[in-house]
Amino acid sequence: MSAFKSQGRGHLDGPVVVLGTGLLGASIGLGLRGRGVPVFLSDPSPTNQAVAVDIGAGRPLSELGSSRPQLVVVAAPPDVTADVVRQALADYPDSVVVDIASVKADILARLRSSGVDLSRYVGTHPMAGREKSGPVAARGELFTSMPWVVCPSGETSGAALQTARSLATDLGAVVSQFTADEHDEAVALVSHLPQVMSSLLASRLQGTPLHALSLAGNGLRDVTRIAASDPTLWVQILGGNAAKVVEILYGVREDLNRLINTLEQPTAPGARLDLAQLMSEGNAGQARIPGKHGGPPQAYSWLTVLVDDKPGQIARLLTEIGEIGVNVEDLRLDHSSGQNVGMVELSVLPNKHDHLIEALNDRGWRVLQS
Amino acid sequence: MSAFKSQGRGHLDGPVVVLGTGLLGASIGLGLRGRGVPVFLSDPSPTNQAVAVDIGAGRPLSELGSSRPQLVVVAAPPDVTADVVRQALADYPDSVVVDIASVKADILARLRSSGVDLSRYVGTHPMAGREKSGPVAARGELFTSMPWVVCPSGETSGAALQTARSLATDLGAVVSQFTADEHDEAVALVSHLPQVMSSLLASRLQGTPLHALSLAGNGLRDVTRIAASDPTLWVQILGGNAAKVVEILYGVREDLNRLINTLEQPTAPGARLDLAQLMSEGNAGQARIPGKHGGPPQAYSWLTVLVDDKPGQIARLLTEIGEIGVNVEDLRLDHSSGQNVGMVELSVLPNKHDHLIEALNDRGWRVLQS
Repeated sequence: MSAFKSQGRGHLDGPVVVLGTGLLGASIGLGLRGRGVPVFLSDPSPTNQAVAVDIGAGRPLSELGSSRPQLVVVAAPPDVTADVVRQALADYPDSVVVDIASVKADILARLRSSGVDLSRYVGTHPMAGREKSGPVAARGELFTSMPWVVCPSGETSGAALQTARSLATDLGAVVSQFTADEHDEAVALVSHLPQVMSSLLASRLQGTPLHALSLAGNGLRDVTRIAASDPTLWVQILGGNAAKVVEILYGVREDLNRLINTLEQPTAPGARLDLAQLMSEGNAGQARIPGKHGGPPQAYSWLTVLVDDKPGQIARLLTEIGEIGVNVEDLRLDHSSGQNVGMVELSVLPNKHDHLIEALNDRGWRVLQS
Repeated sequence: MSAFKSQGRGHLDGPVVVLGTGLLGASIGLGLRGRGVPVFLSDPSPTNQAVAVDIGAGRPLSELGSSRPQLVVVAAPPDVTADVVRQALADYPDSVVVDIASVKADILARLRSSGVDLSRYVGTHPMAGREKSGPVAARGELFTSMPWVVCPSGETSGAALQTARSLATDLGAVVSQFTADEHDEAVALVSHLPQVMSSLLASRLQGTPLHALSLAGNGLRDVTRIAASDPTLWVQILGGNAAKVVEILYGVREDLNRLINTLEQPTAPGARLDLAQLMSEGNAGQARIPGKHGGPPQAYSWLTVLVDDKPGQIARLLTEIGEIGVNVEDLRLDHSSGQNVGMVELSVLPNKHDHLIEALNDRGWRVLQS
């Protein structure tokens, strides 16, 4: 494992060519243009390309003339990415070529078997997105503070790797370096599996009477939020990482069968122990998820404050917490209510918890610990 | 189906006896004492009972004397609830008896088969809780704005039902009325299934290299949050509703097998269509979850604002949104970052969205739509 995080040193001078002006390609163009880097754009859809040019993401590729791009960014859909990379390596024989598809090993394997010069290619994956798509939705700040994985192969040159890292850091992202296989294994687990589990759960709600759904609380809302994601994109992602995702799903199926067997005979000897074991395994896995800003898991202390559900109340609360001098680590609004009282759940460092409750009580807020 | 929601009319006068002074029992005592209702407490653990008395949740049951309680609340663990209810109906032959266990049909069946007078019994389920347990964690406002399901049986008298509804409304909860079977079916889906899916997913994280987990974003965090729940409690809940939960899990297993079959042969004819179908079914289910305050699902518009990650920034933002005159429907802090820039995601009514973005931009905030 060679994974590490660091900030890149160099900056891109350009010109940069961006092939594909959907949400991500156009956002990359916008971000680089904002730093003064010359960007040239191309898209199979003339409309998409024109919109990307109009919003200032770059000039049409036809205007590049005889200049040699420093970097070509392939921002095509995952299933055509390998072909577009291969063509770009041929068309721009002096340029570094990166792609930004969310699955990496399959693309690398296809490039390798096609016999292209891999020294100038770096697979990357900016872990940023939006619920909207297309160049109209592009934002130059889309990558700010988000992880951007770079996956050099054994053949990648040091200079090409540095150029790929500069792309990510110039756009404000946080670079992590993985092999393509490590990357695909990691995203199968932290991104593709949650999507699958959320969709499988949400699917069960299709035939439910609405009065049953009226009891839905934050638990259900949290677990199903990403089930609203775009099926077209996810078909390509899951299809491109099928082997690694299915390997994890075998483990899920095994646990699900254990659970079903136990619940079919809930009074059998050992049934309760089995159930407790399954729930405890979930506890253990959940506790390993790192905290905010990639730090180690940290047990924050939570408290709940009751507020009137009208403009300005939460702002007033947070202003006062600022005056008290405590930093809010996380914040949630509670949705399960049926009255016009809101619940604001706040997490703070454990050593600030009691002080904050006392100070808020003194100021007249209704505080519940939770 | 006879489910409906309404606010109760009457108020409790007491005395009220609470059997079991854990988190919920002691919170009920505190809430009723706050309304001036005389409360008498008992718990098999003398320590628990003493703590509950000390925090003001009521007087020891021994001080009830010859008074006849208006209401007896059984707040015992789910697996002994039926026995305690039966004893309470015998001990207090003029009182209404309610329980508050999170599974209802099994308790009703056991009471019915024991031949007790069911006219004075009402099963209920306050859908409130905390991550802490025991009387020390009790709060009189625990039930404020939360759903409280009441499940009268065919034998329940109108007066007993009214008393049970008054308990919930006096404590600030929102009453829904279901049959015991409808309740158990509903919570199997909206509460027990999300717990199971979250635990099954989190369980897969147990053996993962930490560098893979460093790519975790809000998706994973959301879907696994409730996997941190207490296994002991969930063993009783899942065990008590096993038949209804397992019925839903058969459907999950069927979909999981469809998905595994598809991912085992991702290039087979129809594989992509199958995948798209599975993801779309998740979309359809997710879209049925009601919006805030139990209203119909509402498509809010989201935007993201970049803020410095230091005290006071979010408060300043929300203060200015209040000045702009827009109500924030939901709010999330983004955690996946590795730099000290925070992302605040806000949802607002769609017709406020463009105005808010413009006004925030005018005030110098960095706004992304999302």
